[in-house]
Amino acid sequence: MKTEMACIPCIMKQAYNTARRATENEKDIRKILNKTAEYLKKLKFDTTPADASNYVYQITGKITGNDDPFKNEKKKYNEICKNMLPNLQKIIDQSEEKIYTSAKIAIFGNLIDLGIGLHFDLDKDLDKILKKPFAWDDYKELKRVLESGRKNILYLGDNAGEILFDSLLVDQLKDDHTVVFVVKSGPIINDATMEDAKFAGLVEKIKVIETGSDGIGVKWSSVSEEFQKEYGKADIILSKGQGNFETMWGKKGTIFFMLRAKCDSVAREIGVKFGDIVIRMQKNL
Amino acid sequence: MKTEMACIPCIMKQAYNTARRATENEKDIRKILNKTAEYLKKLKFDTTPADASNYVYQITGKITGNDDPFKNEKKKYNEICKNMLPNLQKIIDQSEEKIYTSAKIAIFGNLIDLGIGLHFDLDKDLDKILKKPFAWDDYKELKRVLESGRKNILYLGDNAGEILFDSLLVDQLKDDHTVVFVVKSGPIINDATMEDAKFAGLVEKIKVIETGSDGIGVKWSSVSEEFQKEYGKADIILSKGQGNFETMWGKKGTIFFMLRAKCDSVAREIGVKFGDIVIRMQKNL
Repeated sequence: MKTEMACIPCIMKQAYNTARRATENEKDIRKILNKTAEYLKKLKFDTTPADASNYVYQITGKITGNDDPFKNEKKKYNEICKNMLPNLQKIIDQSEEKIYTSAKIAIFGNLIDLGIGLHFDLDKDLDKILKKPFAWDDYKELKRVLESGRKNILYLGDNAGEILFDSLLVDQLKDDHTVVFVVKSGPIINDATMEDAKFAGLVEKIKVIETGSDGIGVKWSSVSEEFQKEYGKADIILSKGQGNFETMWGKKGTIFFMLRAKCDSVAREIGVKFGDIVIRMQKNL
Repeated sequence: MKTEMACIPCIMKQAYNTARRATENEKDIRKILNKTAEYLKKLKFDTTPADASNYVYQITGKITGNDDPFKNEKKKYNEICKNMLPNLQKIIDQSEEKIYTSAKIAIFGNLIDLGIGLHFDLDKDLDKILKKPFAWDDYKELKRVLESGRKNILYLGDNAGEILFDSLLVDQLKDDHTVVFVVKSGPIINDATMEDAKFAGLVEKIKVIETGSDGIGVKWSSVSEEFQKEYGKADIILSKGQGNFETMWGKKGTIFFMLRAKCDSVAREIGVKFGDIVIRMQKNL
């Protein structure tokens, strides 16, 4: 997906949200915003929004010396989501279509947004999301592919916190399929890293690998050999969240994008509306 | 209220929202965003957010030749809100505390937001707002002042569309009080102008005056003589919306701020949370 004009104010907002978390020094915050303003003036639209946004996280680390400004919130949301697991597990156990319900719960975790800075309330929104139909629903396709035999699944994780809910979907998949879970190689926004995969108990259940960089989504200019190998082996890619959508959209493979559309540009690209929840298949073989 | 660091990304967003409406020329949109980036780098924090934002609307008019980019939407929301009036009137007629209910409905109109660009849905949100308690509720104070005799009320309007709901509150006040309604002297965002006051039927009921400028809220550097006169005469000021809050907060007079807090900075300044609805009295005599 290409960066567009609408990404400019959003990147400025990300700069503010990150700077505010990284430091209390108002001068440094101002410096980050001014550097971002300079950067945005020159921004070319031939990259993905995810790659265009990476700059603000790099510059924040450089100016403040804090390369993990979302550290505490990642921990917080891991704890919050962990506490919700027993209830969510019960909902899955009682449902007839367990993979579908798990997928919905995993996408529910995609409400968590600290980068763009949307307001959300996990406690209040669970019921709403569970009742809400997918605005784009390719679940039947997913089910069909899953039921056609043992599959190699590459599961591109998104945020900390959310990764706990992803683990519930992984539980539904791992007995009949080979699931490899992907986290970032270093801190970027509140994205899940190996530490979060450990917290979620994923490393004990399945293979967890890193993208090769701390870039948002999949930063193709610096993907690890291991990622490339697993990507090549995958029959199905489950891609969570906007960062992965922005960088995986149009890529080779049978990809199921699972996310909440958190901006108008991504919503338009998918063919849904802002705030909608989505399972969209893309087959580029 | 003073501009703060959080206003920087918001002003960039306003620039995008306005530019996108003013023109389809991508180069002009880019020019507006780049000019805004330059402006933001130099922005001093000794002005109100409202005054700081005025720049993007001026520059958009200058670059695109379109000085009323929200014109069609103002008309649209005037029509939508007009169609809702019979139902709202019924709700007021059936309520025991008619001024309170009218005030809530007037604040419901403050959901309409085209500048900052929040998502809202008038049809879905009416019921929610009517049930929602005010997070800061000085209605008793307002009632006490109103019941202490005939008062001169200066009613600072906010948006088109919303002005139709304001007219319902005006109806509750005008028999026992003298109400003067204030609109902008020229188009700024989707703020109500004299044309909207005519559409809402206010000019036939009460005196309607202009602020003296097309600035957001009350632009004190260019207020009209008429505004100053009416401001001096007012026993009570009803101030709708954020723009008026930002420019009236701390000013002389018995002011009741009625709004929905649409950003964290304003919410913090009032002492409530983002999204809360408020009637807050400020007495600076």
